[in-house]
Amino acid sequence: MSQRVSRRGLFGLGAAGAAVVGAGVVASNTLFEEPPVAHASSTSDPFPFYGEHQSGIVTPAQDRLHFVAFDVITKNRAELVELLQEWTAAAARLTQGKEAGSYGAVGGAPEAPPDDTGEALGLPASGLTLTIGFGASLFDERFGLADKRPAALADLPKFPGEQLIPEISGGDICVQACAHDPQVAVHAIRNLARIGFGKVSVRWSQLGFGRTSSTSRSQATPRNLMGFKDGTNNLKLEDADLLRDQLWASAQDGSDWMAGGSYMVTRKIRMAIETWDRTSLVEQEQIFGRDKGEGAPLGKKAEFDPVDFAAKGADGQPYIKADAHVRLAHPTANGNAHLLRRGYNFVDGSDGLGRLDAGLFFIAYQRDPRKQFVPVQMNLAKKDALNEYIKHVSSGLFACPPGVRDAGDYWGRTLFG
Amino acid sequence: MSQRVSRRGLFGLGAAGAAVVGAGVVASNTLFEEPPVAHASSTSDPFPFYGEHQSGIVTPAQDRLHFVAFDVITKNRAELVELLQEWTAAAARLTQGKEAGSYGAVGGAPEAPPDDTGEALGLPASGLTLTIGFGASLFDERFGLADKRPAALADLPKFPGEQLIPEISGGDICVQACAHDPQVAVHAIRNLARIGFGKVSVRWSQLGFGRTSSTSRSQATPRNLMGFKDGTNNLKLEDADLLRDQLWASAQDGSDWMAGGSYMVTRKIRMAIETWDRTSLVEQEQIFGRDKGEGAPLGKKAEFDPVDFAAKGADGQPYIKADAHVRLAHPTANGNAHLLRRGYNFVDGSDGLGRLDAGLFFIAYQRDPRKQFVPVQMNLAKKDALNEYIKHVSSGLFACPPGVRDAGDYWGRTLFG
Repeated sequence: MSQRVSRRGLFGLGAAGAAVVGAGVVASNTLFEEPPVAHASSTSDPFPFYGEHQSGIVTPAQDRLHFVAFDVITKNRAELVELLQEWTAAAARLTQGKEAGSYGAVGGAPEAPPDDTGEALGLPASGLTLTIGFGASLFDERFGLADKRPAALADLPKFPGEQLIPEISGGDICVQACAHDPQVAVHAIRNLARIGFGKVSVRWSQLGFGRTSSTSRSQATPRNLMGFKDGTNNLKLEDADLLRDQLWASAQDGSDWMAGGSYMVTRKIRMAIETWDRTSLVEQEQIFGRDKGEGAPLGKKAEFDPVDFAAKGADGQPYIKADAHVRLAHPTANGNAHLLRRGYNFVDGSDGLGRLDAGLFFIAYQRDPRKQFVPVQMNLAKKDALNEYIKHVSSGLFACPPGVRDAGDYWGRTLFG
Repeated sequence: MSQRVSRRGLFGLGAAGAAVVGAGVVASNTLFEEPPVAHASSTSDPFPFYGEHQSGIVTPAQDRLHFVAFDVITKNRAELVELLQEWTAAAARLTQGKEAGSYGAVGGAPEAPPDDTGEALGLPASGLTLTIGFGASLFDERFGLADKRPAALADLPKFPGEQLIPEISGGDICVQACAHDPQVAVHAIRNLARIGFGKVSVRWSQLGFGRTSSTSRSQATPRNLMGFKDGTNNLKLEDADLLRDQLWASAQDGSDWMAGGSYMVTRKIRMAIETWDRTSLVEQEQIFGRDKGEGAPLGKKAEFDPVDFAAKGADGQPYIKADAHVRLAHPTANGNAHLLRRGYNFVDGSDGLGRLDAGLFFIAYQRDPRKQFVPVQMNLAKKDALNEYIKHVSSGLFACPPGVRDAGDYWGRTLFG
């Protein structure tokens, strides 16, 4: 193993190294009675890597995303476990603003390829979190995991109207990199891919920006590319009871190895933004069930006013229509199912037909997709007025294991160990 | 025209509105003896829109890019001119942190589509600049511009090794949006596309991040996705004599309407980053002719040490090889040709073959591409050791007219007026 070089140490960006070490020590000595509420004090600071849960789930959502899904190409279980261990060590460094390894010049072997690709040299941690998940396809015969597949990792049903592209769906393993600087997020994914050369292959990858849901009450609610606030009633890190009930998997759910983990659903949702942009404000607001400027439920004044689905206007009609998005997605319409959404806007250039290829890369965490994402999405797919303007083109479902406890632990130990 | 709403005014983000108005007034009353050196004091502040030159050229490079090339689909010259006027008015607002128009709720007509798409409501100006350019294809028979085509807008030659994709090359009109927040850059391009509906069609579009070249001595030199500092010897806004000689077109160059403008070349350069990442540090450094950590020319110590192409090491060989990138691209190897580079890194997901689709979206401004980009790129295309790891897949060449002087002026007036 070549020397591990701190970007901060090398480039004199200050004394944050001490704080980083401190955070790691605190985390690894904590008993985790409560989820650690990790707040980076500025957008350049690190979040703790070690903890009961993985970072990047309740962590206040950072502004940029690089998401990757890998196919495992090795058939060797030991090699896969070794890769997970190498990845964990790299992730522990990367999230603290260090390189994946030496970039080669200091203590390295100049005749060998560098252990870090270098494009984040001099950049701070930028709030980077790396969150791993295991797809259903990993639980086949290759690695002897068939009997470890959680019931909650059941294949998603086919939803009405979806037009999924297999090449950008699924995957054996995913990693979600979130950071305030896209160069830092890209650097992390690229180095994990480099470390995995010959063992995994990039299946698909997605960049995003402008988090579309806040995951903490300390954050303002951002806007999606339809111009509406997104995530007003999102599950948030301050909702301790709901997080326990609806976010974190428990040993009682039937898969011990997932205790403290969570299930992630991804959906790439292409928006017909040119069509949307020619729709009247009244129609846009009726489709969402909220006003566009403030984000208040129709018939109310402020963003966080409780939604009243029974309230009627002067015309005797409900302010919020039967097919309004907010009505159909609301927990009261779905057996009190909540989701912790953590999506990002995307623009992937244009589509060759004069339109921007843009939309929402939806990410949601939950305790059991069968009781949460699936009923909510089935409700939306059947009735949502928004469906005229959106199209689901990719889908992913991943079991995100619990957090890495300390430097002796690794991503997936509870599954493979 | 519906009411123009300031995001700052509506959402209480502070008193920056006054400063914005001030900057506009100063710019439009100035005689422009010297290029205005525009510095936004924070990454949320605006740059002036009005001036002798367009902003977004010598403006200290912002961190994010959304670039779009349009095909003009109207055949009507008056309609095109009207669009350029509408775009200019929108750009003047957008760059100052205002909406393109009302998003509909305040003084607008709720039964009409909003004049702004809304996703930047509440966001500050974020250093947004919008820079327009006219491609050679605009100077055909459609608009009576054939005799206005500048000699410097000669088609680029075919360069050895390039593999251009026509669908993501060229275009009648381009707009470069740079900002510190991608949501602000995307919002600007999307609203210009919306305003142009029925008159222009998006031909191609590109997002980028992590500016790969600094354009001011006040900026640290950023890194490209090969991990090297990029732009150490870039033409910078402080180089007044060189900017006059090599950046800005003059009336003496043969096209009066371009006086104060500049020519932009774009090249999308895909990098074989997985191959690069398996190359030794020694080879990487020899290919660039600089060391990776510091960015110093080989044989020197500091980034800004002058390059000495004659210096030899103990083995009697030049430190900087004959096919090193820095040697072939240097002004001394190209008749003293300089470029103002303003490129961005890109990752467009993956390519379906297990690789990230990543590289450099190169943008360079200059007075005459025939004397600057073309000889430099011909030199590189024939000999550069870097060619093994890169592939040019798109190309653009645009004449960027002079700046908009005041609210009575518009983008392209000197060409169409």
